[in-house]
Amino acid sequence: MKRVFNFSAGPSMLPEPVLGKAAAEMLDWNGTGQSVMEMSHRSKAYESIIGDAERLVREVLNVPEDYHVLFLQGGASLMFHMIPLNFMTVNKKADFTLTGAWATKAIEEAAKLGKANTVGSSKDKKWSYLPTLAGADPEADYLHITYNNTIEGTQYHTLPDTKVPLIADISSGILSEPLDISKFALVYAGAQKNLGPAGVTLVIIKKDLMARIPAGLPAMLSFQTHVDNGSMFNTPPCYSIYMVKLVLEWIKENGGTKALFAANKKKAEVLYNFLDTSKFFYSPVTKADRSLMNVPFLVRVADPEANEAMNKKFVKEAEALDLVNLAGHRSVGGMRASIYNAMPLAGVEKLVQFMKDFEAKNSN
Amino acid sequence: MKRVFNFSAGPSMLPEPVLGKAAAEMLDWNGTGQSVMEMSHRSKAYESIIGDAERLVREVLNVPEDYHVLFLQGGASLMFHMIPLNFMTVNKKADFTLTGAWATKAIEEAAKLGKANTVGSSKDKKWSYLPTLAGADPEADYLHITYNNTIEGTQYHTLPDTKVPLIADISSGILSEPLDISKFALVYAGAQKNLGPAGVTLVIIKKDLMARIPAGLPAMLSFQTHVDNGSMFNTPPCYSIYMVKLVLEWIKENGGTKALFAANKKKAEVLYNFLDTSKFFYSPVTKADRSLMNVPFLVRVADPEANEAMNKKFVKEAEALDLVNLAGHRSVGGMRASIYNAMPLAGVEKLVQFMKDFEAKNSN
Repeated sequence: MKRVFNFSAGPSMLPEPVLGKAAAEMLDWNGTGQSVMEMSHRSKAYESIIGDAERLVREVLNVPEDYHVLFLQGGASLMFHMIPLNFMTVNKKADFTLTGAWATKAIEEAAKLGKANTVGSSKDKKWSYLPTLAGADPEADYLHITYNNTIEGTQYHTLPDTKVPLIADISSGILSEPLDISKFALVYAGAQKNLGPAGVTLVIIKKDLMARIPAGLPAMLSFQTHVDNGSMFNTPPCYSIYMVKLVLEWIKENGGTKALFAANKKKAEVLYNFLDTSKFFYSPVTKADRSLMNVPFLVRVADPEANEAMNKKFVKEAEALDLVNLAGHRSVGGMRASIYNAMPLAGVEKLVQFMKDFEAKNSN
Repeated sequence: MKRVFNFSAGPSMLPEPVLGKAAAEMLDWNGTGQSVMEMSHRSKAYESIIGDAERLVREVLNVPEDYHVLFLQGGASLMFHMIPLNFMTVNKKADFTLTGAWATKAIEEAAKLGKANTVGSSKDKKWSYLPTLAGADPEADYLHITYNNTIEGTQYHTLPDTKVPLIADISSGILSEPLDISKFALVYAGAQKNLGPAGVTLVIIKKDLMARIPAGLPAMLSFQTHVDNGSMFNTPPCYSIYMVKLVLEWIKENGGTKALFAANKKKAEVLYNFLDTSKFFYSPVTKADRSLMNVPFLVRVADPEANEAMNKKFVKEAEALDLVNLAGHRSVGGMRASIYNAMPLAGVEKLVQFMKDFEAKNSN
């Protein structure tokens, strides 16, 4: 069996013990004689699995009592529609920080339903920093932020100071550090970074927000439907939720978000320290706003064609060493290393050693 | 390792060789050193998987060239909204046959967007038959049917004669028999019966229908978005699609839908023949409209309390013999055996033997 260090931005590496457990339980979960994939979602066995998953979300993320926890489908992309549909319903306007590709999409979808105000943008400098709030509307129904910008490599280390309810896409930041859920009215995350496989979206909603949901919405697009039915209005993505449960168990066994935060800081430090001392590679992101999870980096080669050729060479040679999925997003260029919870320090160290060797061979 | 005969209506039994292959490949797919769950959906490895899945759908279901094949999320429940949103857009009215719980939901959601006409209902006789079309509107944007009624146990063996485009929820019927896709404008199916695990919806759309899609829809709710992006506008439910591919490979290796149809007819015959000769059990469904996949059955015990007690006794004793998930849906009562493709004839024979023994012991 071969295993690589996978730096994909998502779907991405999962803890090996979790995959091992899933494989071992594939044909017979807990003596039921059934795969989790085969279980009726109304069975006692499956109810215990989704119940455990919710309990673990509440425990590991320290979710306050006055929040609902939901497992939905459609990823952040469907949330970009559902959130304004359900909650941009008081004054029909909301504020957004514009910090990259995903924030742009969130704004585009909200603008189909009401007024989506941009209150701070980093578009002027290729998304390389996080803007301060500018022109925030005290009557906005909420302020939406992209907590961690997967493509651009920025992350809010301090939440914006706002008087309106704060809603955040935490897809790439979730479980990477302790997060004070009580500061948010709603957070959501596609699973395929730190939570599990693609196909399930975790949504945590403060209960007092529910009063805003209009009557008569399409059943599947109303958060009320899913709250009323404990995420089982229709058949949920059962196996993905089971995998989330296994990942949360692994996190708990490994010291929770506090221990993960320490490990993630260490990994990021190793990579950023190298980038900041290298004469060949560099991080395009302002130090104060750098993501712990997604690290884009560029080569100091001025000629565009030579630059592109160097990136390709890097990615290809890294792959030969089993360091995979390091190509940067086309909108940023260069390379990107996503170092989620399941990436061990050894993977980052191996990457940095390779970068040192590559620099020695390729810089003049 | 224990394996049971699982008669669940969905999620439901999967072929054991498919589960075995998934387990074996869990940590390292095809020498990539990655689980399918960990792969970037933009990687060559994953593109080959989703490409194979689409190719196999086209081949096994004999999908004509002028149809799109999509893998989406949200199950039939989200389709109940998306289909009228995209296609009930010419005269803003559509016809529906009202044949059970799922058809009812389809109508409710369409009625939020336009005029949803009922053109034949079997509600008068507890959904125990399929109605003929009555009052069909030649100007309806489409006629919607529930091809196989999972809860009520009916199935269209002859399609309704209609001049408007025919749209069908084929969730529980898909792949159980050869189906002439060219007779439909659109078919859709939640995977969790005959296709794979819950979390992915297969949609097959005739290309000429696409012109009806209004501009400006929420991106995730427009079929155009998903067609334009080959089901990868956002991260798809990658692992569920991989499982669908494995199931389709298994179907192909086992003779395709023609061979499955023969096996399914045999299984259904064994069960219905017994029900029709039993003095204790019976099928509530009109013979001509009986489903090959979902077989509700009741006991001839007049007193409601004694009837309910007898059902419970049956389900409990069956479970002790590893015949599981035989409780009927609460709206029909009694028992229900779902005998999808992955249920072997041996499972049905064991069930019938148990029913004979149960009858002998419990009838006066």
